[in-house]
Amino acid sequence: MIYDILITNSIILPLDHDRPGQITQGYIALKDEKIMALGSMNDLSPGWKADKIIDAGGRLVMPGLVNSHTHAPMTLFRGLADDLELMTWLHEHIFPAEAKNVNPEMVYWCSKLAAAEMILSGTTTVADGYFLEDSVADAFIESGIRSVVAQGVIDFPAPGVPDPSQNVAAAAVFIERWLDKNSLLTPAVFCHSPYTCSPETLQRAKEMARHKNVKFFVHLAETRTEVEQLQEQHGTTPVRYLENLGILDADTVCVHCVWLDAEEIQIMARAGTHIATCPQSNMKLGSGIAPLKEILAAGISIGLGTDGSASNNRLDMFHEMDMCAKVHKVKGLDPTAIPAQTVLELATSGSAGILGLEKDIGSLVPGKEADLILVDINQPHLQPFYNSDLLVYAASGADVSTVIINGKIVMQDRNILTFDVSQTMDEVRKLAVPLMRDRKFL
Amino acid sequence: MIYDILITNSIILPLDHDRPGQITQGYIALKDEKIMALGSMNDLSPGWKADKIIDAGGRLVMPGLVNSHTHAPMTLFRGLADDLELMTWLHEHIFPAEAKNVNPEMVYWCSKLAAAEMILSGTTTVADGYFLEDSVADAFIESGIRSVVAQGVIDFPAPGVPDPSQNVAAAAVFIERWLDKNSLLTPAVFCHSPYTCSPETLQRAKEMARHKNVKFFVHLAETRTEVEQLQEQHGTTPVRYLENLGILDADTVCVHCVWLDAEEIQIMARAGTHIATCPQSNMKLGSGIAPLKEILAAGISIGLGTDGSASNNRLDMFHEMDMCAKVHKVKGLDPTAIPAQTVLELATSGSAGILGLEKDIGSLVPGKEADLILVDINQPHLQPFYNSDLLVYAASGADVSTVIINGKIVMQDRNILTFDVSQTMDEVRKLAVPLMRDRKFL
Repeated sequence: MIYDILITNSIILPLDHDRPGQITQGYIALKDEKIMALGSMNDLSPGWKADKIIDAGGRLVMPGLVNSHTHAPMTLFRGLADDLELMTWLHEHIFPAEAKNVNPEMVYWCSKLAAAEMILSGTTTVADGYFLEDSVADAFIESGIRSVVAQGVIDFPAPGVPDPSQNVAAAAVFIERWLDKNSLLTPAVFCHSPYTCSPETLQRAKEMARHKNVKFFVHLAETRTEVEQLQEQHGTTPVRYLENLGILDADTVCVHCVWLDAEEIQIMARAGTHIATCPQSNMKLGSGIAPLKEILAAGISIGLGTDGSASNNRLDMFHEMDMCAKVHKVKGLDPTAIPAQTVLELATSGSAGILGLEKDIGSLVPGKEADLILVDINQPHLQPFYNSDLLVYAASGADVSTVIINGKIVMQDRNILTFDVSQTMDEVRKLAVPLMRDRKFL
Repeated sequence: MIYDILITNSIILPLDHDRPGQITQGYIALKDEKIMALGSMNDLSPGWKADKIIDAGGRLVMPGLVNSHTHAPMTLFRGLADDLELMTWLHEHIFPAEAKNVNPEMVYWCSKLAAAEMILSGTTTVADGYFLEDSVADAFIESGIRSVVAQGVIDFPAPGVPDPSQNVAAAAVFIERWLDKNSLLTPAVFCHSPYTCSPETLQRAKEMARHKNVKFFVHLAETRTEVEQLQEQHGTTPVRYLENLGILDADTVCVHCVWLDAEEIQIMARAGTHIATCPQSNMKLGSGIAPLKEILAAGISIGLGTDGSASNNRLDMFHEMDMCAKVHKVKGLDPTAIPAQTVLELATSGSAGILGLEKDIGSLVPGKEADLILVDINQPHLQPFYNSDLLVYAASGADVSTVIINGKIVMQDRNILTFDVSQTMDEVRKLAVPLMRDRKFL
């Protein structure tokens, strides 16, 4: 067999339950967009050939990271307004900036900038939710990143959907357009939240998602205020509310889930509903710390996400893993809570699972898609390298040297090969000029 | 005047109270180890000359970061044991590993590895506390990093001090040896803690430090258990205990201070005692979150530190700044708590202040020592660059491209110029072999 790519002399971390631990001196062989074989260098027969050989030179190979929730176009608003009360931040800064600046061109370039940041920090799959997602899809496809792209639904005039009564219909058109169009992209629906969508909108959007057999994302139980408001308006809590509306099932991903009571966790477990947790965003916005231990104990399928770069302000999943592990330890004053290995799972197979991609990605297993990253551990902050806990507690996205998605080298030696990053930064900087002027940064 | 180094075309962030904000298109001129001038490029007279010109090309210049607490030699133990109860971690992993592995050679090479990591992530001054600090001093001096090096005092047999009755005497000898020996290094005393040093040891060590006019560091109120034990054994709380012993003054730095009551904060404020806060270590070990808002409100002088790399596991002050800002926001569910600008101050002038170096370093002001770093903001995760909040919420140590300490270029384009980092990694890897064998990593 002639492989497309053979990576040699690598520490291999499969993150596969059937093959725990790491292979100290290993190889991994890719062919036709898939992982064909991996193992110890000793088991690599001399008869095997490859079109391209990458000598990892001791670097570590692991599955690409999977960011299960972000708003890619919001790179334009990163750092525009920090350290503010949530409502001040939203109503005085983010919403006005969005009203003025969001259009297809902006969404395209800012998503491309986000893709650059994600690829450079080792993310190979991302789930996005925003408006004008056709432009997000175009940007992601050009970048080579694998994605779930969810068209936003909200009961307000939104970019591309000025008439809110058309929000679900517009999402349906988006899904029709992208279903089975590109093997790297899966369309989906993103209902913003129970406080921005009516019960009817939530139900209609979910019904449409069910009909088209796509994922349904929704922000849920992010802040205490949200829970109190829902209680006031609908006499119940967020999870019970969605349960009553018939929205919780195995194709629904509830994002954040910071404020859940014990019974709500059981409701979600019984419904088989999924969760995307975004610890850094919840920290920076002062929203709270999700009951992650309890969610995991209940057997709920959960993934890790960065949220958008206006509220994090990073799309670096390595950073997110570290924050996730540490904040949950300090929450219960328990250093054994949420170990590094659990976080590595959340960021790979966990996120893949909630996106419905668990058979394709999330671990290094023959037959899965060839989505993997090389991490340069031959650096002062990663030596000696006793074990893979260091990937959580000491590595950062900048340590990723090479990224392969779907068998294609997308980033090599910190250079993105699929598109012009300098041009992308230039275009986004141009888009930022009016914002800088408005805010007297220029 | 002919400058030694002139940096041009830079965004300059002085982090100076008298000159708030940033200079968009600026220069900074260095001469005889000091900052001579800085300002807008427009104000740079064409008559000025320089031996070396660094065109920053839009990169940002800021003061070097000041790590106010670490244990540099512990790089050997980074990642050896994570996600464990504090006492299991200490007694079953760290203490046995230290007993077997700490010697002058180990301290020298592992401190050099730490220096490499710190310089590469933009730290220009570090305060260290461990044993065999002569070897730390040698390593730091060779690396070019500025330092406060504190010899450990503990009432147990320690590396280099097998007889505990000689602990304070050994520290005195260390201080005599290094006082006024090297302009980049200040010796000090590090009493491990009230639970590992008797009241007599604490008092004798502080008396010696006073006599020699050097700083006195002590771990204090790190865990709830420590407070409870001290209450049981001495009938009082950590701060009151040190106050009773006469140890709190403006040359004492209390490290951690997670568990303080309101009155203890006032006691520290009245005594003019300093604090070094290490939020990531406190998170990872599940120790707690320090009352930083209250400490700042009381006007206590406070700096930021990483703690050792066995309990963090990073020496990256950019990462520490981000964690610090975010964990304090989520603690009180208040996104306005501990803004990015406060954290930037903690990591520069704050840390410099508690080390007694506030007149020399911590901000870019003519007359101060030339300790500064260039940050490459022309990267996808740092564009658009609206303001310096991004240094906390989006930058990482890997974004530092050049480091100047005491007017000397120590790191340029990610390459350390003062010593051989590859050799250092090789030496530390050799030292790690027995640990890897012990723990079956090999």
